[in-house]
Formats: sequence, structure tokens, C-alpha cells
Amino acid sequence: MANPILVEITRGDLVESVHRGAVAIANAAGEIVFSLGDINALTYPRSSLKPIQALPLLESGAAEAFGLGDEEIALACASHSGEPMHTTRVAAWLERIGCQPSDLACGPHPVRYEPVWEAMVKRGEAPSRVHNNCSGKHTGFLTVARHWDIATKGYEHHDHPVQRAIAVALGELSGIARELPWGVDGCAAPNYALPLSAFARALAKFAVPQTLSGERANATRRIVRAMTAYPELVSGTGRACATFMRSAHGRVAVKTGAEGYFAGIVPDAGLGIALKIDDGATRASETAMAAILDKLGLLGDDAAARALLNAPVTNTRQTIVGERRPAETLAEISFRF
Amino acid sequence: MANPILVEITRGDLVESVHRGAVAIANAAGEIVFSLGDINALTYPRSSLKPIQALPLLESGAAEAFGLGDEEIALACASHSGEPMHTTRVAAWLERIGCQPSDLACGPHPVRYEPVWEAMVKRGEAPSRVHNNCSGKHTGFLTVARHWDIATKGYEHHDHPVQRAIAVALGELSGIARELPWGVDGCAAPNYALPLSAFARALAKFAVPQTLSGERANATRRIVRAMTAYPELVSGTGRACATFMRSAHGRVAVKTGAEGYFAGIVPDAGLGIALKIDDGATRASETAMAAILDKLGLLGDDAAARALLNAPVTNTRQTIVGERRPAETLAEISFRF
Repeated sequence: MANPILVEITRGDLVESVHRGAVAIANAAGEIVFSLGDINALTYPRSSLKPIQALPLLESGAAEAFGLGDEEIALACASHSGEPMHTTRVAAWLERIGCQPSDLACGPHPVRYEPVWEAMVKRGEAPSRVHNNCSGKHTGFLTVARHWDIATKGYEHHDHPVQRAIAVALGELSGIARELPWGVDGCAAPNYALPLSAFARALAKFAVPQTLSGERANATRRIVRAMTAYPELVSGTGRACATFMRSAHGRVAVKTGAEGYFAGIVPDAGLGIALKIDDGATRASETAMAAILDKLGLLGDDAAARALLNAPVTNTRQTIVGERRPAETLAEISFRF
Repeated sequence: MANPILVEITRGDLVESVHRGAVAIANAAGEIVFSLGDINALTYPRSSLKPIQALPLLESGAAEAFGLGDEEIALACASHSGEPMHTTRVAAWLERIGCQPSDLACGPHPVRYEPVWEAMVKRGEAPSRVHNNCSGKHTGFLTVARHWDIATKGYEHHDHPVQRAIAVALGELSGIARELPWGVDGCAAPNYALPLSAFARALAKFAVPQTLSGERANATRRIVRAMTAYPELVSGTGRACATFMRSAHGRVAVKTGAEGYFAGIVPDAGLGIALKIDDGATRASETAMAAILDKLGLLGDDAAARALLNAPVTNTRQTIVGERRPAETLAEISFRF
């Protein structure tokens, strides 16, 4: 059975392209309160996993030992755009833990934020590992290894203690006892595949930390607080994650992931949201998340956030020639919590 | 009924994302000799329409009157990368017909070929309308208007005689008598929606020009000759269209289109190929076309062409972490013509 169409792209009077996918929304009791499509198939959360990958940084006491603030915690959860606000903080953090950019296992890639990228091209400056959108997460991994006084080299390997701690935390939060299959993410760190239903359950625990043990409760609280306090550090100027969190005035923490994943934590409603677009399209995961936040009353009035729900398709003359919109499956739902 | 999965993206041991779509292959008699998925739904060929949009340029006698060579005909069919080989030829052609870049109705957009784009950024040079990937097509439209001695202004409007001539040609070649629905393409020109089956029939006519009237037969022959003689002018350095046409040693003319369309003309086999990825992903349309060309014995041995069939997914460390590959639907077919 194919997953339902979640998002449509129109041109003229016709639907030109469609995006299928699945959505799971769970509460902290582990109940699935809403779903669309197959929520039992194994999928990689990719960067949507970052709030969980940041847990050892807090639970180990490393963040406290190195005096990290919410800005660094936000960066540990970030897929950032490589802007100076990101790279200067990551560079300073690396220095604080006695590490170098060359200690980062993530490779360089072009900076996402155009003005910064164009300035670098003009200066003839190549991107460094600090520019990698995952450099904050990796600095978090290094910080834990430093705190535990174990080898930093190889921290990205599946069997390194930092990665094992993440796998254990993910298993506990998602309620999956068995070893999860894993693949290598774009940044060279392991990423674990699990059902959308299980990941939504893990996110719901972040929404209702009082259901967790003291140490973990504090860690999840701190992560949600840091993400919502510094939306641009989690993403970048004008990015969807920042737009959603700003428009919701901190009432939701969201995190995009590559290949069409999107995760959400809604403390007020005690919910975790996990969605995946089958074909991996970010344009669709953003509109699907916008539709869900809208139904939850969390999309807000911000024009940029509304534009992610119903986005104009423009041509090179900037004429509007079509629209990106939620399909009926998402447009017609209503939540009652 | 959802279309079948045509292309898969793996990571580790799992399929991470999938692309659904439909394929129609027709012969010049109008028979569908192979299909997958719904080939009757209306879809926009987008830039895959360009060989048909170039017909009035030849059939009107405009190309002959202005002494155009195969290089200009290839550019009229191009979605080019904005490299100097494209822009200098388009600029010279515009001059030859007494037009200016400002006469082009397509808007500017960043140049696709990275080295050229980076050099422009370094020089502080903004892209012009000549850099638009459709500037050759638009110069072709202007050439016809000049030849007919009619207004060039408004040549991109649906009711302009140049666009009407294209709509008539498309109707005749595809065998659809009624007016086709249309939308505005990225370059501001009209684009017509029709079933994959009908567009495959139109392309098959290009493959077997002897089934056409003298003037149209000559025009389609010239277009196929120009596209296969100048693959890089139709696309750009390292692009999929150039790669396929080079690897097939001119035995196939192919043309990509936005939102996951791909068209092919196979003179040897007398076939036209039209495919569309439901979600609009180019990565999938390229792999689907590679799979079909492979089954037709036309993919060749070129490493770049084989890499479009089975493309490694790499991370930022350039480690291979997955694969893009044809799904069983495409991997297991065999053609017998």
C-alpha cells in the first residue's frame, strides 16, 4: 500500500507533482493519537535525531563541566547554515574543550546561507569542517569524549562510547529494546532507523519530561529550552525550523532532517510529531509540518510561516505560476486534544 | 492507484527514499510498446517540450533565412548551464536577428555550472537573461517573430502566433485534437499538459521522420541531428543529457524537463520515450532514463553514464554510504524490438 499524498505542487490549473509520506503523532503514554500512512516502516530520522544525539552531552555532565550555555546546546541540535553566528560559536567551543576543527569527523561542504557563501567565494575561501551544518553536533560528541577522558579520535564510529550512549538513549525513549539498524549520515556519524511511531514516542517524552527520570528529565527540558530560545542557532536565517519556532513563540521545538524527515515536540499538548516524505523532498516535509502545526494552532500569524503552508511557485520573472499546498489528507484533518 | 516505485535511494542496508512515476514508450504508429504506471494523466513536459518548441523555427523557414547552424538549433532545444559556450552563442544569435538580451522574456537566474558561477560572483557580476537556461529557446521564438515580421514583444504569450504554432504542432504530433491545458513555465513561456502516452507518440514521430510530411520531416531530422551533434549545447558540461547522448554515440536524443520529466528519441528503434517522476525529482528521472536506455542497449560504457544508473550516495567525507538505483520495476524489464 502506497502512503497517502501529503503535499501537492500545482502549475496552472493542474497538479504537477505530488509528495507521499507518513505522519505519526504520539503522546507521552506512547499512544499514537494521529497517523497517516505506514508508521511502522523503518526510516532514518537523519538530522531530526539531533535532540536525542545531544542527550549524552547533558546527561554525562559534560555540558556543565565545560560551562556550556543554551547557545551551545542549540548548536548541538543544529543543522546550521554556516553563518558567522554558528561558526564563531562552534570555533570558540572547540577551543574551550581543547580541540581543533581537524578533530571534527564531518567533512566540509558549501555554506548554505547565500550571502555568506558568496562572500567566501569572493575571498577565495574554501569551507572548513566548522562550516559543516553538523559541526555543533560533532563538537558536542567531542565534548562528551573529553569529559569522559576517552579517545576523541573515532568518536563518530558506531561502537564508540558516545555513539553507544546515544543508541541506548534512543532505545529507551522510543521503547525499542532491540539493536536498531543504522547507516552512515552525511556528516559521517551513525544514524539509526526506526518506525515513525517509535520516534514520535521518543519526541513525546521530550514534551512531557516529568515522565522521565530526574537526569533525563533535566536534559530533555534543557534541550527544548535551548532550541526554542535560539531558533536561528538550530537552523539559520530564514530557515523553516527558525520560522516555525519563532512563529509559535517557543511553543514548539522542531527539527528538520535530510530526505524529507521532520520532527516536532509540543510541550503544551504533550505530543511528539514525526513525519517522513517518501521521496525525500524537503519542500514537502516543510509544508506537511506547517499543515500539522496549523491544525494544532501553532503555526501562528508570521507571514514566513504561513508561506510554508501555502507557498507560491514562481517563475524566473517572479510571476506566481502555481502553488505548493497540503493535500486533502492534511488539509482536512482536525485535532482535538 | 499509486504509480509504481521506479527508483530507490538506499543508506546502509535500508531503502531510505523511493520515487514513483510512470513511463510510456511509443512507436511511430502510435502504439504504446511499453508502459509503467498511469500514462493517461495530464503532465507538463516542461523543458522536455523544447524539441517541439523548436519546430516553428525550422518549419517557418526562419532558421534558413537567418542562416542558423546546428549549434543554434541545439541551443533552441537546450536547458543550458550558462557556460560561455552557451551565452556567447546566444548573444551572437540575438545580434544576428537584431534583438537585445532585454527582448528575452525569460528572467535571470543563477548560472548552474559552478566554476562559471563562482567566477561571476568573484567579479560581482549578476546573471542576465542570456544566462537563463532557456535563453536559446527564447531566441528561437524571437527569430520566428522576426522572420514573420510580427511583434516580438509578447512572444511568450499563449496567444502569440509563435506559441500558437507550437500548440498546433504538438497537437498534430501527439494526436490530440483538442486544446491542451497549459501553465506558465519557469521561463515565462506557456507549457502544455498532455498524457505521457501522447507525448511519447510525438517523440516517436521525431524518431521516424519518414512518417511525416516533407517540411516537418526535415525539421524533426534537423532537430535530432543538432541535439545529438552538440550534446553539451543542449545541456552543459557533465550534465545528464550530454552524458547520455555522448555515451550512446548519437543513437539517442534525450531532453530533461523540470519536475522529474525526461524525454527520449531513439531513431534506430523508431521509439519515443516519455517519463515523469511523480514527486518531481531530477535525481530519479535521470536514473529512470538511464535504466531504460540500458535496457535498450543505449547506455553505453561511459563511466559517467553508468554512474547515473547506479549512483553512489556519498557523505561529506566522500565515503559511499548508500546507492541510488532503479527499482525492480525498471531493473527487471527487458525490451524486444
